[in-house]
Amino acid sequence: MASEFELIARHFTPATPGPQAGVAFGVGDDCAMLAPRPGLRLAVSVDTSVANVHFPADAPPEAIGYRALAVSLSDLAAMGAEPRWCLMALALNEDDDAWLAEFARGFHGLCRTSGTALVGGDVTRGELAIGVTVMGEVPPDLALSRAGARRGDVLAVTGALGGGAGGLVLWRRGERDLAHPLLARYLMPQPRLAAGLALRDLAHAAIDISDGLLADLEHLLAASRLGARLEADALPLAEGLVEALGGEEAHRAALSGGDDYELLVSLPATALDEATRRLAGLGLSLTPIGVTSTERGVAGVALDGHHGWQHFQGGGE
Amino acid sequence: MASEFELIARHFTPATPGPQAGVAFGVGDDCAMLAPRPGLRLAVSVDTSVANVHFPADAPPEAIGYRALAVSLSDLAAMGAEPRWCLMALALNEDDDAWLAEFARGFHGLCRTSGTALVGGDVTRGELAIGVTVMGEVPPDLALSRAGARRGDVLAVTGALGGGAGGLVLWRRGERDLAHPLLARYLMPQPRLAAGLALRDLAHAAIDISDGLLADLEHLLAASRLGARLEADALPLAEGLVEALGGEEAHRAALSGGDDYELLVSLPATALDEATRRLAGLGLSLTPIGVTSTERGVAGVALDGHHGWQHFQGGGE
Repeated sequence: MASEFELIARHFTPATPGPQAGVAFGVGDDCAMLAPRPGLRLAVSVDTSVANVHFPADAPPEAIGYRALAVSLSDLAAMGAEPRWCLMALALNEDDDAWLAEFARGFHGLCRTSGTALVGGDVTRGELAIGVTVMGEVPPDLALSRAGARRGDVLAVTGALGGGAGGLVLWRRGERDLAHPLLARYLMPQPRLAAGLALRDLAHAAIDISDGLLADLEHLLAASRLGARLEADALPLAEGLVEALGGEEAHRAALSGGDDYELLVSLPATALDEATRRLAGLGLSLTPIGVTSTERGVAGVALDGHHGWQHFQGGGE
Repeated sequence: MASEFELIARHFTPATPGPQAGVAFGVGDDCAMLAPRPGLRLAVSVDTSVANVHFPADAPPEAIGYRALAVSLSDLAAMGAEPRWCLMALALNEDDDAWLAEFARGFHGLCRTSGTALVGGDVTRGELAIGVTVMGEVPPDLALSRAGARRGDVLAVTGALGGGAGGLVLWRRGERDLAHPLLARYLMPQPRLAAGLALRDLAHAAIDISDGLLADLEHLLAASRLGARLEADALPLAEGLVEALGGEEAHRAALSGGDDYELLVSLPATALDEATRRLAGLGLSLTPIGVTSTERGVAGVALDGHHGWQHFQGGGE
């Protein structure tokens, strides 16, 4: 295969980002040299996407590149951070130039639309895997932790749920049209960066829904030392989900399917209208799905047998 | 295998770093929240170490953990940056608790001695590989780029060369004693962080020697648009290298063996004495090995047939 240097030069050296991107110099040096803005916190996260674990190895390469960055950016969205920079650690088994060009197109495309500068990375031999480190900035008093939820908060989710799991089911059935809304949700998820920025002065806490609503709700509640009561019927289901999976499986996908990359936020009831209005301005819905409580566990979920359920107390209904 | 959450909790949640480490909060949140110091540049780099590509899969797990961080920190050393934070993306095939404990001990040990706080990461299934993102800080006017070398500079290297390649040869011959100086050089390389800090106001340019002296010299010269004349006889050879490999192979290992993680610096001749004095204070030698010139290519190297040679013009001797 081509050397690491050749690969990097051919596909991953976009127009070197300049001072306006906060990059002093360094793409191609031992390190990238970044200029964080004074007074802001730096939010950093890494997510690795592995072929046939996190995405199908035969998915369109543009989607694979896009998605690897999207799932990392979703963590910045959940903190209310503004994306600035990323690094990519790419493991490749073969040097397929056409594949890499499409992969790079997907990755660079989301870099552009999200305002994220690719400032470094490496390429190694191995099973296809993409590790993306993202860095963003947020004013210290506006960062959205998982731990800030308060008793009596409304729990609400952006957009719709279950689309990630529904898209995976469709992929396994042979659907290959990326224009199908569920397949698009699974393979080209939109990190809710604008929603995180819009809600960071209203919400008490947030998390992105990557492992499934119930599992991620558990993380938020554990960090905040609270419980919750959900209205399972209130869950906003992804377009086409009931038609594709049937009603019961659709609800199961929304509760515990994972890969949705929507935001789950905990916010005071008094802020719900304003939050809803702001997201509507972004073309995005915000749906209240329950309230926090001091009683540990999650009550009010009627389904069982789904992933993550063992972490929860069964509810009353 | 144990879930990602269990693995992270068991081995990779050291005492959560506090404000003194510049960590506002966030280990276990969607992102870590860091507080870079105002006025400094942020130096970032990622390096992925893959089993049986970058290290033997059956190397001592403590060495594997140590080494994965060391090779990333070496990039900070080459910029003259002070390490602050790191993230680890770990791919594992099996959940061997004893192995992981040793691996974590090696990693955390170098975190401690280098002043690097582990602030996040992820664990995925796959062939053993460790991607480490490091972040450090450096005053803008002191950062050591590859591109700053000037005509007539002295080229000098810290420590000794060839030990990485020599250690690999010994490992393949069955040597397993980590106390053997060459094996230690290969499996437990010491990132030259203190040397980078000590030289950053004296040197014009620096690079760490990971691909081999000639290959990395080429990178530095290309970035600085210069050539060089080397004195191959001046190369400082690692302890035990000639005995292990013989004289010719020892020189070849020093020129192009790679994995040495020493620093190659370009500095004015007038600064050489002071630079040498400072490194001596750190217990480290600094050896002049040549000078830069405006004539492109590297002259003065008598050996040929080694990796990287094709990138260079043959020399005069």
